[in-house]
Amino acid sequence: MSAVRNVLFLMCDQLRRDCLSCYGGRVDTPNLDRLARCGVRFENAFVQSGVGGPSRMSFYTGRYVNSHGVTWNNVPLSAAEYTLGDYLRAAGRNATLAGKTHVAADAAALARFGIEVESERGALLREGGFASIERYDGHRPPGPESAYADFLRAHGYAGADPWSDYVIAADDGGRIVSGWQMRNAHLPARVAEEHSETAYLTDRALGWIEAQGASPWVLHLSYAKPHWPYLAPAPYHELYRGRDVGPIRRGAQDGTAAEHPVVRAYRAHDEALAFAREEVARHVRPTYMGLVAQVDHHIGRVLDALVAQGRMEDTLIVFASDHGEFAGDRGLGEKELLYDEIVHVPFIVCDPDQRADATRGGTEKRFVEAVDVLPTILDALGVAGAPHRIEGRSLLPLLRGEAVPAWREAVFAELDYGFRRARRVLDRGVQECRGFMVRTARHKYVHWQGFRPQFFDLAFDPDEYDDPGAETGFDPDRQRLAERLFDWLATRKRRTTVSDADVERNTDTHQARGIHLGVW
Amino acid sequence: MSAVRNVLFLMCDQLRRDCLSCYGGRVDTPNLDRLARCGVRFENAFVQSGVGGPSRMSFYTGRYVNSHGVTWNNVPLSAAEYTLGDYLRAAGRNATLAGKTHVAADAAALARFGIEVESERGALLREGGFASIERYDGHRPPGPESAYADFLRAHGYAGADPWSDYVIAADDGGRIVSGWQMRNAHLPARVAEEHSETAYLTDRALGWIEAQGASPWVLHLSYAKPHWPYLAPAPYHELYRGRDVGPIRRGAQDGTAAEHPVVRAYRAHDEALAFAREEVARHVRPTYMGLVAQVDHHIGRVLDALVAQGRMEDTLIVFASDHGEFAGDRGLGEKELLYDEIVHVPFIVCDPDQRADATRGGTEKRFVEAVDVLPTILDALGVAGAPHRIEGRSLLPLLRGEAVPAWREAVFAELDYGFRRARRVLDRGVQECRGFMVRTARHKYVHWQGFRPQFFDLAFDPDEYDDPGAETGFDPDRQRLAERLFDWLATRKRRTTVSDADVERNTDTHQARGIHLGVW
Repeated sequence: MSAVRNVLFLMCDQLRRDCLSCYGGRVDTPNLDRLARCGVRFENAFVQSGVGGPSRMSFYTGRYVNSHGVTWNNVPLSAAEYTLGDYLRAAGRNATLAGKTHVAADAAALARFGIEVESERGALLREGGFASIERYDGHRPPGPESAYADFLRAHGYAGADPWSDYVIAADDGGRIVSGWQMRNAHLPARVAEEHSETAYLTDRALGWIEAQGASPWVLHLSYAKPHWPYLAPAPYHELYRGRDVGPIRRGAQDGTAAEHPVVRAYRAHDEALAFAREEVARHVRPTYMGLVAQVDHHIGRVLDALVAQGRMEDTLIVFASDHGEFAGDRGLGEKELLYDEIVHVPFIVCDPDQRADATRGGTEKRFVEAVDVLPTILDALGVAGAPHRIEGRSLLPLLRGEAVPAWREAVFAELDYGFRRARRVLDRGVQECRGFMVRTARHKYVHWQGFRPQFFDLAFDPDEYDDPGAETGFDPDRQRLAERLFDWLATRKRRTTVSDADVERNTDTHQARGIHLGVW
Repeated sequence: MSAVRNVLFLMCDQLRRDCLSCYGGRVDTPNLDRLARCGVRFENAFVQSGVGGPSRMSFYTGRYVNSHGVTWNNVPLSAAEYTLGDYLRAAGRNATLAGKTHVAADAAALARFGIEVESERGALLREGGFASIERYDGHRPPGPESAYADFLRAHGYAGADPWSDYVIAADDGGRIVSGWQMRNAHLPARVAEEHSETAYLTDRALGWIEAQGASPWVLHLSYAKPHWPYLAPAPYHELYRGRDVGPIRRGAQDGTAAEHPVVRAYRAHDEALAFAREEVARHVRPTYMGLVAQVDHHIGRVLDALVAQGRMEDTLIVFASDHGEFAGDRGLGEKELLYDEIVHVPFIVCDPDQRADATRGGTEKRFVEAVDVLPTILDALGVAGAPHRIEGRSLLPLLRGEAVPAWREAVFAELDYGFRRARRVLDRGVQECRGFMVRTARHKYVHWQGFRPQFFDLAFDPDEYDDPGAETGFDPDRQRLAERLFDWLATRKRRTTVSDADVERNTDTHQARGIHLGVW
C-alpha cells in the first residue's frame, strides 16, 4: 500500500458502538468488520458531545464544543471557525459532502460581513466549508438542498412529500401508517431498499468517486441512519427479532431519588417516557439493528468499489458515529447525557500507507476523540493545520506504530440542555444548563452547573450505575478529576487570531519594534 | 439633572489607582476628584487583564479575555466579536474615538470574508467598531492613522519623526537626549505642553464635542498617558520631586526562592532589571506623577467645557484606567502580573440622571469590572445589548441606589505571558503560559498553568507579600477559590451565535418542528 491521496470520512448518525459485530455486538456488520481488519479498530474512542450538531462540529473543526461554541443542534457554527474544508481549500483541495452535517449557518455574521448566502463564499460558510454533492440531514422531509425528493418522485413515489408518504410510512394491512409512531417499527417502509436514504446517498457517493477518476479527493459520506424514525425497508425491517435484542439494562438508581437531578429531569422527555416501557425498546430495537445492518451493507458497496478502482491503496478511510443512543437502557431514549452508551463510539481508521502495516487489523486502546479526525486527515494529506486553533491530535503516529512519548489520559465531552424540556423541569435559565465530562480509564466525573457532580468508579462500576451522589465527603479521586477538568477548561484554545509560530516569532521583540523598556 | 443623551468614556493608560488624590494618593488630581464628587467613586474596580490590549478589549466587548480571545497586546480582535460601536450602530448611533484603543485588526478574517480593509465595513472591523476622530495609540511615532505628526510639524517641530525628536526628546544642556532613557526622566520634553499628546487629544475631543451641538454623542477619549516613555513637558516634569514619591514597597519574598516561579521569571525582563534598582524608581516616579497631573488638568478642561455647554446635565461620564504599573514596587517594572497594583484600578462614573442623585459624591465598595462598562453605557442609552455575549453587568442599579438582590462576590483576570521573555526563562511552549486570577474581598488565588497557584489571605496580608506557596497541604479556602475559578471558566459565554431569547423560544419545540419523539 502507498501514500494517502484520498480520504473517505464515513459517518453514521446515532450508531451505538455495541451494535457492531467487530465490537462484540449483536448486529452482523461484515463490512465494518472488514474495514477493521484493514485498519485499526479503536477501543476507546469518544465524541465531544452526545448531541449530533455539537459532536459533528468537533469532528469538522478539530475543536471541543467549548471552543467552537455550537453547544446544541441548530446553534450556528460561527463564521470565525475553520473547518476541514477551510484547511483543505487553503491547500488547493476540497472537502466534499454527501449526506448529513447538521451545520447551521451563521446568518448574522454573513449579514454583518456583507456576504450573500448564495455566493460561493456564502455557500461555503453556510455549509461548514464543505463543497456539496448533496447535503441531506435526514429525519425531515428533504429540503431544497437535496435532490432526494425528486429522485423519489422519478422512481414512482409521487406527491409533494414522498419522504413522509413512503420513506417513513408503512402499509399496515391497507392502512398507511407513519414511522414516527414507534408501534409501526416492525413494518417495512413503503420505499424499496434501493431507493432508501442510505442506498441513495451511497449511489450519489459512488458515482462521484468514480467520476473523480485518478484525481485525488476528500469525501465525507455521512449517513442519516440508523437515527430515527425507526422504520427500515425490506428486508432490513425483519432481519432481527425481539429475541436478538438481548437485555435492556437498568441501574438500581434509575428514576430514584438517588439519581442525579439532570438525569431525572431527562426522564420527563417524550422519548424517555416512551422508552421507559421495556416493550417499546423491545419493539424498536430490532428495526434499529436492521438499519445498522443496512448501513453496513452499503458501506460494503463503497469498499467494494474502492477495491475495484484500486482506491484502497491510496485512500485513508475513517469511520465514526456522532454518538450512540439509549434505546431503553436506563429507561431513557435518545442520547445527550454523558454516559458511555452515548459518548463512547465505534471508530475505525484504515490508513493505506505501508507504515501502517504493522498495526493493520489490530486494536488500539489509547483514548482518541472526535477532535482527532481533522488533524489526522490533514496530517495524512500533508496539509498544514493550525495548532493555535486545532485541539485534537493526529492519529497517524498511533496508526503507524510510531513511538508516542505522551498520549492523553482523559477524554472530555459537554452538554448544554438549555433547549430541552429538562431545563424547565429544573427551572433553570438558558445560560445555566451546562455539563462537562472528564473520563479516564478508571473514572468518569461530570460537572453540572448548579448541581452536584456525577462520579463513577469504572473499575467497580463499568456500567455507571452507582453514583455515590452528594453523600460522600472529600474524595481524592473526585478532587483529581475536578482538577483535570479545570486544567482542560483553562487550556482551551482561545487565542485563535494569531498563529503559534507568530507568537514564537514575536516573543520578547519589543526592542526590535522600537519599544525600549528598562533603559537607563 | 436629566436623562443620559451622551456618553464620555475617559480612559488613561497605565494609571495606578493609588496616585489619585481622590483615592488617597500623592498626586493632586483636583479634576478627577471633582468628577468623583459629581458621581460615584468605585473602591473595588478591577480590570480583566494587566496588559493594555486584552484589558481594553474587555472594556470594548463586555467580555472576559477568555471569551474575546485577545490574550495579549497586538493579538487581533476576532471579527466575530461585537464591540460597543457595533451595539450602538445597530441602534443607529456611533461610538467615536479620540486616542488609544490598542485594537489589532483581524486581517485574516477580513481577507477570508472578502472585506476590503479600507471599506467602511473594513474600517469598523479594523478599529474595533469605533468611528474615529483620531486613532492615537501612543508610545511610538504616530502612524498614518493619526494627524499628530502633521500637527507637530505645523507647529514648528520639523522633521520626519517629530514625536521621537521632540515629544520624547529632551535637551540636556545642549545635547538632545531620548525619553526612552529613564535617566532623562527629570528633563522637560522638547514639546510645549499645549502641543503634547495629552493636550492635542483633548483639543481634538473638545472641538468634536462642540461640533456635535445638540446632537447626542458617544465619545471614547482615551489618553496614551501616563504610560511610558517617562518624559513630561514643562511644567509637569518638575511638579513632583523624589521626596514626593513615598516608599517603594518590597515584600519579604521578592526575588527569593519562595517566590512564585512566574513572578521570578518576570524579574528577567528589562523593565524589572531596571526598576529593581530603587534609584531608577525614585528618578522616574516624579515624572510619572507629573504625567498623571497633566492628564488630570486636561480632563478638567473637558469637564469645564461640558459644564459650559450644559452637557454635564445629559452626559454619562465613565473614567477608568486599563491597568496600573509597578514602577519599582516588588522590584518590578511595568505591569501584567496579577497583583492589585496592576488589576485594581481607579474607576469613577458620573450618571447625570436624577435617580443617581442619591449616590452622588459617594463611594461604592461592591466589586465592579471592566466588562461592566459596555453594558452600563448601553443601559444608560436604552440600547439593547446581547445577554448571550455580554458578560458584564450594568452598573446603573448601583449608581441609582436600586435594590440589587445579588451582586458578584469575586472578580477575575487573566495573563498570557506567551509573548514575553518569561516564557523562555521558564522554557514553556506558546500555549502553556496562562494565569487566571480570582479575587474575593478576603482572598486572591491565581492559577498558573504548569505551576503551583499563588494564594493570598488579604485580611492578614493586604499587600500580597506572603504567598504560602507549595508548602501547605489541603486548605479549604484555596479549595473554594479554585472551585470558584472553575465555575467561572465553565460559565463563560461560548454560545455566541444564538440569542438567549431564541434559546428560550426554541426550548422543547421539536414537536412543532415536525419531529415526533417518543410517540407510540
